[in-house]
Amino acid sequence: MDEHISPVALEKAYRLLNHGPTVLVSAEHDGVDNVMAAAWACALDFAPPKITVVLDKQTKTRELVEKSQRFVIQIPNAAQLELTQAVGSASLSDDPDKLAKSGAELFRIDGHKMSFVAGCSAWLACKLIAEPHNQNTYDLFIGEVIDAWADDRVFQNGHWNFENADPKWRSLHYIAGGHYYAIGDALTAAGSTED
Amino acid sequence: MDEHISPVALEKAYRLLNHGPTVLVSAEHDGVDNVMAAAWACALDFAPPKITVVLDKQTKTRELVEKSQRFVIQIPNAAQLELTQAVGSASLSDDPDKLAKSGAELFRIDGHKMSFVAGCSAWLACKLIAEPHNQNTYDLFIGEVIDAWADDRVFQNGHWNFENADPKWRSLHYIAGGHYYAIGDALTAAGSTED
Repeated sequence: MDEHISPVALEKAYRLLNHGPTVLVSAEHDGVDNVMAAAWACALDFAPPKITVVLDKQTKTRELVEKSQRFVIQIPNAAQLELTQAVGSASLSDDPDKLAKSGAELFRIDGHKMSFVAGCSAWLACKLIAEPHNQNTYDLFIGEVIDAWADDRVFQNGHWNFENADPKWRSLHYIAGGHYYAIGDALTAAGSTED
Repeated sequence: MDEHISPVALEKAYRLLNHGPTVLVSAEHDGVDNVMAAAWACALDFAPPKITVVLDKQTKTRELVEKSQRFVIQIPNAAQLELTQAVGSASLSDDPDKLAKSGAELFRIDGHKMSFVAGCSAWLACKLIAEPHNQNTYDLFIGEVIDAWADDRVFQNGHWNFENADPKWRSLHYIAGGHYYAIGDALTAAGSTED
């Protein structure tokens, strides 16, 4: 595992998603790996941390999540713009070489039977909280975050540090048609606290 | 209504939320208005457009949403940093003057029995899709977007135009403790499409 990948305390894991980045969802079942992009992922609770993510019925990743009951939400960055677009456009069902073509490189973390995408800014290992009505009616999946990590070049001591990191670490915020925004300048409200 | 507030086609309403901004949630019931900030709001579907938003049981806004079955999700901007922080910190239950102190100015739009916050970049009028299990278990509320508008100085022809608008129009992306990021630079993947 890359020396820069550092554990994030579970009570601060929500901060990895709080600013609304587009994410990569990875899942593995029975030796089949897949990765997709999702703009519709969101924090749901602080402790234990939970998240929501929308997984369309057409996606292979959804099938792997349903079978394995596990998935990883990872936060890609500006250096991964083309990778993010590629895994968000192609489907493993149509193209068995999807992952190789996208440039997505997977790695394992000890103790977790999941596949993680290398080069991201942060990773949230999740177990599915089965909610069949939400899944069937809204394509809405709920996960409990059971472990989290971030690259210490962009997230340190429980805080994103986009303002001081290389711009290649900026999170991606998808709109439509291949158009994204990177996260921008830090803004601090009066009476802010450090924690 | 301000001359710059322009309708957004419902099939493009998801784009207002797609990049994960922190939002303001407003609701009105029986003459009582409230506004809160929410970082945990997310698109859920394209057509009809649906959204999710997490409303804690402690919030007065949640009570108004449950009673009226309606709410507005609006996208605040950098010029509203202090307003956003203020409505996200104080509770109407503790301080009846919350709205006046925050500087939030409300307005009406013909045909909608809802209160809208002036000066925002976009507004999504929602009707609650009642899902008691989600609401009680996860504080998770689902809304169908029944109408949408944006300020034409920052959103035009179905597209955000942060890159050419005054920086005061940049959306806010909350982390914690009064710390936000503004949305940043536009990034376009190879093979992007215009639509």
